[in-house]
Amino acid sequence: MFLRQLRWACQPLRRYSTVISSDFASAIAELNKEMEVVFGEPPPVNQAGSSNAILSMSHETTFAPHENAEAKQGLTHISSSGEAQMVDVSSKEITKRVAVAGCKVILGEKAHDLVSANQIAKGDVLSVAKIAGISGAKQTSSLIPLCHNINLSHVRVDLKLNEKDFSVDIEGEAASTGKTGVEMEAMTAVAIAGLTVYDMCKAASKDITITDVQLKYKAGGKSGEWSRKK
Amino acid sequence: MFLRQLRWACQPLRRYSTVISSDFASAIAELNKEMEVVFGEPPPVNQAGSSNAILSMSHETTFAPHENAEAKQGLTHISSSGEAQMVDVSSKEITKRVAVAGCKVILGEKAHDLVSANQIAKGDVLSVAKIAGISGAKQTSSLIPLCHNINLSHVRVDLKLNEKDFSVDIEGEAASTGKTGVEMEAMTAVAIAGLTVYDMCKAASKDITITDVQLKYKAGGKSGEWSRKK
Amino acid sequence: MFLRQLRWACQPLRRYSTVISSDFASAIAELNKEMEVVFGEPPPVNQAGSSNAILSMSHETTFAPHENAEAKQGLTHISSSGEAQMVDVSSKEITKRVAVAGCKVILGEKAHDLVSANQIAKGDVLSVAKIAGISGAKQTSSLIPLCHNINLSHVRVDLKLNEKDFSVDIEGEAASTGKTGVEMEAMTAVAIAGLTVYDMCKAASKDITITDVQLKYKAGGKSGEWSRKK
Amino acid sequence: MFLRQLRWACQPLRRYSTVISSDFASAIAELNKEMEVVFGEPPPVNQAGSSNAILSMSHETTFAPHENAEAKQGLTHISSSGEAQMVDVSSKEITKRVAVAGCKVILGEKAHDLVSANQIAKGDVLSVAKIAGISGAKQTSSLIPLCHNINLSHVRVDLKLNEKDFSVDIEGEAASTGKTGVEMEAMTAVAIAGLTVYDMCKAASKDITITDVQLKYKAGGKSGEWSRKK
Amino acid sequence: MFLRQLRWACQPLRRYSTVISSDFASAIAELNKEMEVVFGEPPPVNQAGSSNAILSMSHETTFAPHENAEAKQGLTHISSSGEAQMVDVSSKEITKRVAVAGCKVILGEKAHDLVSANQIAKGDVLSVAKIAGISGAKQTSSLIPLCHNINLSHVRVDLKLNEKDFSVDIEGEAASTGKTGVEMEAMTAVAIAGLTVYDMCKAASKDITITDVQLKYKAGGKSGEWSRKK
Amino acid sequence: MFLRQLRWACQPLRRYSTVISSDFASAIAELNKEMEVVFGEPPPVNQAGSSNAILSMSHETTFAPHENAEAKQGLTHISSSGEAQMVDVSSKEITKRVAVAGCKVILGEKAHDLVSANQIAKGDVLSVAKIAGISGAKQTSSLIPLCHNINLSHVRVDLKLNEKDFSVDIEGEAASTGKTGVEMEAMTAVAIAGLTVYDMCKAASKDITITDVQLKYKAGGKSGEWSRKK
Repeated sequence: MFLRQLRWACQPLRRYSTVISSDFASAIAELNKEMEVVFGEPPPVNQAGSSNAILSMSHETTFAPHENAEAKQGLTHISSSGEAQMVDVSSKEITKRVAVAGCKVILGEKAHDLVSANQIAKGDVLSVAKIAGISGAKQTSSLIPLCHNINLSHVRVDLKLNEKDFSVDIEGEAASTGKTGVEMEAMTAVAIAGLTVYDMCKAASKDITITDVQLKYKAGGKSGEWSRKK
Repeated sequence: MFLRQLRWACQPLRRYSTVISSDFASAIAELNKEMEVVFGEPPPVNQAGSSNAILSMSHETTFAPHENAEAKQGLTHISSSGEAQMVDVSSKEITKRVAVAGCKVILGEKAHDLVSANQIAKGDVLSVAKIAGISGAKQTSSLIPLCHNINLSHVRVDLKLNEKDFSVDIEGEAASTGKTGVEMEAMTAVAIAGLTVYDMCKAASKDITITDVQLKYKAGGKSGEWSRKK
Repeated sequence: MFLRQLRWACQPLRRYSTVISSDFASAIAELNKEMEVVFGEPPPVNQAGSSNAILSMSHETTFAPHENAEAKQGLTHISSSGEAQMVDVSSKEITKRVAVAGCKVILGEKAHDLVSANQIAKGDVLSVAKIAGISGAKQTSSLIPLCHNINLSHVRVDLKLNEKDFSVDIEGEAASTGKTGVEMEAMTAVAIAGLTVYDMCKAASKDITITDVQLKYKAGGKSGEWSRKK
Repeated sequence: MFLRQLRWACQPLRRYSTVISSDFASAIAELNKEMEVVFGEPPPVNQAGSSNAILSMSHETTFAPHENAEAKQGLTHISSSGEAQMVDVSSKEITKRVAVAGCKVILGEKAHDLVSANQIAKGDVLSVAKIAGISGAKQTSSLIPLCHNINLSHVRVDLKLNEKDFSVDIEGEAASTGKTGVEMEAMTAVAIAGLTVYDMCKAASKDITITDVQLKYKAGGKSGEWSRKK
Repeated sequence: MFLRQLRWACQPLRRYSTVISSDFASAIAELNKEMEVVFGEPPPVNQAGSSNAILSMSHETTFAPHENAEAKQGLTHISSSGEAQMVDVSSKEITKRVAVAGCKVILGEKAHDLVSANQIAKGDVLSVAKIAGISGAKQTSSLIPLCHNINLSHVRVDLKLNEKDFSVDIEGEAASTGKTGVEMEAMTAVAIAGLTVYDMCKAASKDITITDVQLKYKAGGKSGEWSRKK
Repeated sequence: MFLRQLRWACQPLRRYSTVISSDFASAIAELNKEMEVVFGEPPPVNQAGSSNAILSMSHETTFAPHENAEAKQGLTHISSSGEAQMVDVSSKEITKRVAVAGCKVILGEKAHDLVSANQIAKGDVLSVAKIAGISGAKQTSSLIPLCHNINLSHVRVDLKLNEKDFSVDIEGEAASTGKTGVEMEAMTAVAIAGLTVYDMCKAASKDITITDVQLKYKAGGKSGEWSRKK
């Protein structure tokens, strides 16, 4: 009985939410125009219209299963109704796709020198992290919820000691021939490699930081080639 | 026949390696003394002696399986013979262990504002990343090769938009009652959460960077409580 | 010595089994004719003949590796010799395949109202279950033993509170371009989403039931489009 | 510039949300009293107070990491601030915990009789589903986001053909000695077993439905023994 | 209609099976006595009696869920009713358990010399296989259906080139403190390490064979210490 | 300060290593010629030249990301700079690929007869191992670090009791249409099936050995069809 009241007390918010969403939808539309200027590519048309889509949320027991109204509003994994989704890539073209990502593990002098000394041995820190990064790239879709599971044609992870700032520079590359990009695979590879370096050095210093996990290069797909400016 | 030659050509290096390793072993010994001063804890004694251990590498078909000569020389996952290993924690005491890690995803103004606008909706960027981080923590031992598989009693991941620098601040906490620390679980949680934020925002900007992946707090185990100085 | 006797004692059964199997094989043949009437598609011819195949089980140390005599006798994952197998789809055509599945979680009034009240918050029950369902779809082939591992081009999971029967209605959609259907991916998505709703509500009521996990729609492949009659 | 406006347009909603949340918090408090009557166990006290906790959401860049204010408000995986979390079980007592769950796969007469005929063979439908259910139970924590990863001391899955309604009755049991219950492991076991039966029979009929996935028995932990009334 | 006949046609076999099973049960009983002599440990008593258990299979819709009649008849994972199961270890005592397994990868001279030459480099064949073996040990329970998921306190994998027979000798060790042995973890570690060596050398020779995958040492648990005779 | 010395002490080795490597590179070149004679296929040209590639290891902070100089020097997963890598298969042709592998589990008479007696029951040792092998094949790329993740169109695992030597003969087949072979999937399938047989029989005998894990047949790809000579 009391619970009935609770639900009704919340109703106004939901109704209000729909109103805001309507504004939000038009705001997103305007935003998309701005993005088109920046990225030189018109955002895909949302057939159903985003405001309608959001309003239809009130029809709680009806579904619209077969429409895949993919609403890339900058945030590609957010549907036109504002909910999380795994983007439908069925209609994308198959091209060779490559992505290179990088990161830096700042070790500090002590940990750096230990890793450096160890590098001669079999199964050293950098070797283990390299293997972990390659294996990690293959786990990307089971780690990142809205990431497509794809077949990788190539994964490369390189780790180099950098004496200048007592760090490890990590670079990861992923390649695939398919409908979806491989940025997340390259990014995951370097992040897991970096975490593995951290794991093996953490007893030497708690002050180790993984930084600059970022995309360095990308090719293939609609948006074509891109390189990070140095 | 030719291959026989190749193998012999490589022999000198291996013999030389042993000599260097002997120096390396004594260098590690001195280093451990330094570390003892810093961390206030003597490194575990390596019964067999590291130089011998390395020399025994030449006895190619003999193993010394039942000795678990755990040689924590700063790099805990490197055995006395310089090889990678998963540390034996059998003799460690069971205590409650907690670790808190953090990271920052620098989105830039556009992506930040998109995420901020989306935050109202169900299944928004920060919610998805939070779930990914919690799930990621539970996958730590299958991602980090030398990390123990443990039972976590608690995982928490929080994400907050930071308007000052247009970023997402992520904090992750892991807890366990056992023989080994949970730093890697907390570190992995924030890294996976950060990668998920990146995944959902990457269409809005390629200039997003994950930075400052680091330990913030740690309690339990032999080395006790530790907090990062602000 | 005694064990020798045991093995011989079991022989008669095996021989008897072969006789029955011969009947079984002809029964299956007749059954297939019935299925052809129902599904309008002749079952693939079993080259070796199923009775022979079963008889050949006695040649214990010989294998017939390169024949892929795919014997779809209604139970596609059972070979002509009655053993479990992962169906060979090499010769199937590549088409776009879509499947939609649904299920219902009957919460009862109390749990329903709690979820309803919580829906406003970030990271609510339905959001977490949605993400779990999408992630679950990608794990299908590692959960269902004879299910092919495929690349999904799209996964969608929607959850709606149903006030009429105090339930959550879940719908999941999977799509792929390939040689094998995606029913199991859609079915797994809704089942895992339903289990996640259960997990988060189980403290409120032990009387929650997941029901009506079933296929709603299917397109692509040899059998074409199909919709469940309301 | 325009984006700045968007964010401010959304502000009112957030503020309103806080007001509702305050009501929501007191509603939850009242609900907890009701639940105490039903379940005979007072809900854990929320030290910080839920309304404050929710209000503190506006302090976007501050964290309260070390407090584990576990706010079980019926929905145990929802924190006092309304966010999803993996419950902290550190302080729970270690007891033997058992759970039994069940489900029913309604096959229809044709599919039922095919499975029945096949049951004689090695590697039949029910055997494969049994193995899938046992393996599935061990994957529970990687499928259900807020579920603890635990060590199971026992898993049992039984499948029986039911001629009365042409179905397969599945029962799953999980046991563990630890701080958290095993309901989800038993529920996941029967759900994955049911999906496997569906997978192997789906070519015979698209009308198969998995139903009555529910808890049947539970023992151990604070709430003690419980059996479903027939 | 015809299907009804099919089912009845199969009945005789099932009834016959029960008769044989009764003999089988007494044979198992006699076998257990022999095993007791060999292993010096009486097999656990099977309360229900195996013949009855098998006969009760006809009561298709009744379950006996809460009895865990663990019938270790040599094959520990086979229940008293002849079905596969994950053994209930709830009542076993917690002890430190260690297992050492070994295997040999026969490379042939060419592949052996290539690996030998490569061993100097970073990330060489033996290093990669070592990491794969350690990681593999942690996946044991998700690979071996009836194997318990446990926490390992230690994993060690060593690989040595053996010039005498142009092979790689692999040794793996696993340790745990718990209720169940770690043989499978040690066995899986060496098998995965061996497969990894194979993977990296398979382009050099298709004639590589993994052999002698076997237990070498075992300690802890009821049966105590055991070493393979040389 | 002391650490600075350590690093310099190690320099000579590294420089020496480069010298050896240069010899190693020319040795590899000669070896490749031999392999061409044996396998009838010229090894792919290493554009950069292997000696240069190895020398460039001293440029520690520079990367050469976009070149995929695939240096198959017999050990395909070792790059021209001697480091582990996942081979880039982007440019390989898409063909149907099949591989058959086999292994033998030597049980001894007692365990063999137990398995033989059990084979009649549902969910027997061989059935469980068969399912484990099929599931294992799908996990290959997450177990073998440098193995590509691919979609399998077919997996088959057969187990037969061999009375002559009291063993289980296991055969596994994998098929795929793609750019990379499926040997590892077939090899992993039989290895996991063999480990599962071991697991279920280990209580009956500790003397069980898995042996002869090897490739039996291979078709598709550049090197074409191959069969093991009996």
